Amino acid sequence: MKAIQLNNPEDPRSLALVETDTPKLRDGEVLVKVHAAGVNRGDLLQARGHYPPPPGASDIIGLECSGVIEDPGTTGRTIGEEVACLLAGGGYAEYVAVPEGQLMPIPEGYSLTEAASVVEAACTVWSNLGMLAGVQEGQTVLIHGGAGGIGTFAIQLCKQLGATVAVTAGSAEKLETCRELGADILINYREQDFSEELKGRCDVILDIIGAKYLRQNLRSLAADGQLIIIGLQGGVKTEINLGALLPRRLSVRGTTLRARSLAGKAEVVASTVEHVWPMLSDARITHHIHATLPLADAAKAHDLLDSGAVTGKIVLEV
Amino acid sequence: MKAIQLNNPEDPRSLALVETDTPKLRDGEVLVKVHAAGVNRGDLLQARGHYPPPPGASDIIGLECSGVIEDPGTTGRTIGEEVACLLAGGGYAEYVAVPEGQLMPIPEGYSLTEAASVVEAACTVWSNLGMLAGVQEGQTVLIHGGAGGIGTFAIQLCKQLGATVAVTAGSAEKLETCRELGADILINYREQDFSEELKGRCDVILDIIGAKYLRQNLRSLAADGQLIIIGLQGGVKTEINLGALLPRRLSVRGTTLRARSLAGKAEVVASTVEHVWPMLSDARITHHIHATLPLADAAKAHDLLDSGAVTGKIVLEV
Ligand SMILES: NC(=O)c1ccc[n+]([C@@H]2O[C@H](COP(=O)([O-])OP(=O)(O)OC[C@H]3O[C@@H](n4cnc5c(N)ncnc54)[C@H](OP(=O)(O)O)[C@@H]3O)[C@@H](O)[C@H]2O)c1
Ligand SMILES: NC(=O)c1ccc[n+]([C@@H]2O[C@H](COP(=O)([O-])OP(=O)(O)OC[C@H]3O[C@@H](n4cnc5c(N)ncnc54)[C@H](OP(=O)(O)O)[C@@H]3O)[C@@H](O)[C@H]2O)c1
Repeated sequence: MKAIQLNNPEDPRSLALVETDTPKLRDGEVLVKVHAAGVNRGDLLQARGHYPPPPGASDIIGLECSGVIEDPGTTGRTIGEEVACLLAGGGYAEYVAVPEGQLMPIPEGYSLTEAASVVEAACTVWSNLGMLAGVQEGQTVLIHGGAGGIGTFAIQLCKQLGATVAVTAGSAEKLETCRELGADILINYREQDFSEELKGRCDVILDIIGAKYLRQNLRSLAADGQLIIIGLQGGVKTEINLGALLPRRLSVRGTTLRARSLAGKAEVVASTVEHVWPMLSDARITHHIHATLPLADAAKAHDLLDSGAVTGKIVLEV
Repeated sequence: MKAIQLNNPEDPRSLALVETDTPKLRDGEVLVKVHAAGVNRGDLLQARGHYPPPPGASDIIGLECSGVIEDPGTTGRTIGEEVACLLAGGGYAEYVAVPEGQLMPIPEGYSLTEAASVVEAACTVWSNLGMLAGVQEGQTVLIHGGAGGIGTFAIQLCKQLGATVAVTAGSAEKLETCRELGADILINYREQDFSEELKGRCDVILDIIGAKYLRQNLRSLAADGQLIIIGLQGGVKTEINLGALLPRRLSVRGTTLRARSLAGKAEVVASTVEHVWPMLSDARITHHIHATLPLADAAKAHDLLDSGAVTGKIVLEV
């Protein structure tokens, strides 16, 4: 089969379509003929050698895809069934092996390409804001990077859960997109200190920045507030004032979907299909595709996401 | 009435029994004639000017007591009823005003003095390990300072919940007490690095040290592990490596019982009476009183607790 790989492991821009082996199925996996694969910031990190796949996973890039079952292996699935897939890796390819617990139906009314754009965001956002934080009506949620792939999804989900949504983004255009998706409080992080605006007001923060925002995030939390860190774009190490946690009973948690066990991923996928898929099928939450490129243009797609010009998601089509 | 106060606000050892006003009742409060008051490490901090009472609370030291209702105020309580009381302050005195939601019955078979020794520990330990962390059968819980007032209670509660209990303490004698209370893994923190012993094994840690132990605590947590910090005896500020949180989905939380709202305290008290009082009444959990002193000897009691020679609790009797 054809798949994207680095021609030169030292050069993240050397991504190219090459001939490689079709994956062999393990027990409980199906072989999916990929139609489209979503591009995630984690993919850029992996191309730079920073986000290695978990043990046993494909070393091909790609955390989500859609396609058609080509070989159901030992599962009871049907050849030809259309599926969306949460992947630990392997999406940037013609074929990918997927554990059955990571298969999802195509949301009603969605094309295969559209479906590939929502899997990773839906599972990440739901597992953190729904399953872990338990966001509830009347709460205030701060979403950093509101115009990104994760952000555009998170805004909409939080509005569906009845929360007031604050977002940060780096430009007026991106903030306008966030507003259209339902965000209530818009903060341009290049011009404002978000913690000045939000001091003591946030019940939950979904953070992708890490070290650089830790102090301001804690300052922005209300009593019993939860900071959930899913990205470390602003570094990993910083000083923490633990004295800030106790009186307001704050919590700081970090998570990654990719590092979860097979059973953990299956649990997230099942809960996401149960709770979030209905919101996609009746368009209470919409996908937000910025651009669709051919799989061979993966390097271009990464450059585009890296440029900061993207709102929502980029999808690669096979 | 008589109450303990600092003769010299600059000198934490100048605690003495002085004449002062009997507290006036606010709506929903009862006046309790104090029989005994438990001594807590927080009291030592307050005497040193470090742990000021929350707004509206008595500035007299004392976070827990037992006694008899002298004036039921606007509540429907009965004069002469024996009660144990969770306090935001005011326990080191002949009389204290207590919000009704912070009254608890005397556990069956307990003397008033014994009852005064378990209130703060029971509410603190249950609110953190039961209500927040949800400690479950088969989990491993690390309790720092296992031989202290909080520690002796926490070991026993965790055993009742079916957990494996690891403890730290500073001497072989204290560790022997922990073992007798049910602790399974005994670590002398003066001789061993607990994180070497417990690396990746703890589901929950109840920490009273803070900054000094943060790195080792995170290292000791298993996947989905929860670090709950309730004391900062080892400082407040330190470096945190957020990268350590994400792959194992760790959380760090701080809490203080004293800073909770009236409603929050009432919720903790009700849940503690519901879940923990039965374990006291049938002696599945026992009190652990190291020494009983007259109220006038509060300074001596503080010196004793400060000396590090105490196992379990000191109680002052009026
Ligand atoms: N832990 C997990 O399971 C998990 C799963 C998926 C994704 N993630 C992480 O989530 C993050 C977002 O992923 P993605 O795929 O949505 O990437 P993305 O589409 O590139 O979105 C990132 C967004 O962050 C914004 N941003 C950059 N610096 C910022 C700052 N200082 N303050 C606020 N916003 C800032 C960017 O736009 P502007 O700067 O122009 O506003 C961009 O919109 C990444 O760090 C990724 O690794 C984690
Ligand atoms: N947040 C809340 O709501 C709340 C409520 C109650 C209490 N607390 C806090 O909980 C802590 C314990 O209170 P307490 O009343 O139980 O005090 P305590 O009886 O004095 O117990 C503290 C224990 O810590 C041990 N210790 C000291 N340094 C240690 C270290 N480096 N590693 C491990 N253990 C160490 C001490 O004995 P050895 O060193 O001899 O072993 C002692 O047994 C205090 O910090 C208090 O402020 C918080």
